[in-house]
Amino acid sequence: MSEHRLPSWREGAARDAVLRFLADSAALPVEDRLAVLDVDGTLWCERPRYVQLDFFLDQLDGALRSRPGLRERPELRAVLEHDDAALADLGLPRVAAALVELCEGLSPQDFTARVREFFAVRTQPERGVPYRDLRYAPMLELLDELRAHGFDVALVTGGGAEFVRAVSLDLFGVPPQSVVGSQIGYRFARDDTGRPGLRRTAEVDAGGVNEGEAKVTNTQRVLGRAPALAAGNSPGDTELLQWAGSAGGPSLALLVEHDDAEREAAYTSEAGSFHAAEPIGTTARRCGWTTVSVARDWDRVLVGA
Amino acid sequence: MSEHRLPSWREGAARDAVLRFLADSAALPVEDRLAVLDVDGTLWCERPRYVQLDFFLDQLDGALRSRPGLRERPELRAVLEHDDAALADLGLPRVAAALVELCEGLSPQDFTARVREFFAVRTQPERGVPYRDLRYAPMLELLDELRAHGFDVALVTGGGAEFVRAVSLDLFGVPPQSVVGSQIGYRFARDDTGRPGLRRTAEVDAGGVNEGEAKVTNTQRVLGRAPALAAGNSPGDTELLQWAGSAGGPSLALLVEHDDAEREAAYTSEAGSFHAAEPIGTTARRCGWTTVSVARDWDRVLVGA
Repeated sequence: MSEHRLPSWREGAARDAVLRFLADSAALPVEDRLAVLDVDGTLWCERPRYVQLDFFLDQLDGALRSRPGLRERPELRAVLEHDDAALADLGLPRVAAALVELCEGLSPQDFTARVREFFAVRTQPERGVPYRDLRYAPMLELLDELRAHGFDVALVTGGGAEFVRAVSLDLFGVPPQSVVGSQIGYRFARDDTGRPGLRRTAEVDAGGVNEGEAKVTNTQRVLGRAPALAAGNSPGDTELLQWAGSAGGPSLALLVEHDDAEREAAYTSEAGSFHAAEPIGTTARRCGWTTVSVARDWDRVLVGA
Repeated sequence: MSEHRLPSWREGAARDAVLRFLADSAALPVEDRLAVLDVDGTLWCERPRYVQLDFFLDQLDGALRSRPGLRERPELRAVLEHDDAALADLGLPRVAAALVELCEGLSPQDFTARVREFFAVRTQPERGVPYRDLRYAPMLELLDELRAHGFDVALVTGGGAEFVRAVSLDLFGVPPQSVVGSQIGYRFARDDTGRPGLRRTAEVDAGGVNEGEAKVTNTQRVLGRAPALAAGNSPGDTELLQWAGSAGGPSLALLVEHDDAEREAAYTSEAGSFHAAEPIGTTARRCGWTTVSVARDWDRVLVGA
């Protein structure tokens, strides 16, 4: 049977390691069959820009029509003018906060509707395809295999939890309660009839930006257990991958390496959003992770290709 | 078919409302089929004591064997001596914090193992039955019906998230990622080999004690959406029940009233852990909730009876 599984994966060490883990996982108690996967650069393409950044740029476009004065805010001006020096000077957290403010006050339902509208009508400008086509076909096959082997599949993103939750079931078959991310806080509010509801704030919750150690603590807080499989692609995924299998039994840590400029993008993972003391490839060798080379191990890359 | 469903529910308005909601829920998009249920007093008996309190008393027994000095701590002495005046004077938050400290420093896995051991070997002293027998048979039938109708079933407890998660799959068929509760914080720590792990702290996370408004904000934060059905029994469930159906479509708010001293316990829900401005029954009438009387609506109460 195995030759018919993971059809987008080429034969080789990475595919062998995945198939071996799937076979070995029969020894895991069902409740320990949890797989967690990073999203940007692990389940879909993050270059030339994070999908979520394109969403917020789209929100900014819309907001400028009614509030042109937003253009004068330094963080937003730097984004609009692609002013890399100003962006570096301001720092990602401050720029991200200014973008997050664009959706402040929305109900969770309205925010979700905006994200889904974006995916429904916008195309990725450089590739000219819908954003859903940026998903990696081999990874979608892996998610299906994991579920077929009794795994709960969860997403652990450095991006916004709600952004990913809005499309997680549609794009990855993952329900919103199985998404862990950078969590924007909510304010409890009643409407005129006294009915309770929630409004987005512009602050990240106490769980913090979901990178590095926070990916471990937030996964435990939201999902309530440790994963047997963890997959990622950047230094911000290091602790999550090291944590995989800490409950004992078969485990797998998968690192996706982006080395295919022709079919996707070639970039060293140091360029991620999180600073690490060493290149992620060095960490992978030291920790015995399974490395997935896009160029070598994937026969097909993007679902839309 | 309907006469064979919910066999532990007596015919009447409550059962009719539940069956009508289940039928109407076919109109709900699958992703809006979320049911959230309080735990203590809604899914299992909370009298004469919360199950979780018995667990911590058991932990205290064990801790005293190696650390008899704990007996001198005012909060723990008041608990051990059933000193209601001292307990009222100290306040539940301070007493709870002292009990939570007993498990400080444990890994999540070790804490889970302790909870499961408690359920495996201890019996509820007044009833002489295992704690799992304190579950309400009619509510387990409701959970099964909800799942049969495509619902994700989640637990939203005022108690500890990890305490409930340790047994949620076994006792209620609910995986840990679908449990929302008062969340004890975790500290990220590496062991001697550099492997990351987590240790319980003694502090409740920023989400706070999961009662009242916090049940709404924490449910959105952890589950990522609003429920169509919410069930509870105490003033601390008010906001959660009012929130049910806020995404639109068929909804049901269920309030369990404990009025059966013979088969379970009779107590007014004002005696709950959360202070409300009015009796919960008044809120129920005002908000049009469906009231479930244990005495009138349930043919069978505890699964162990």
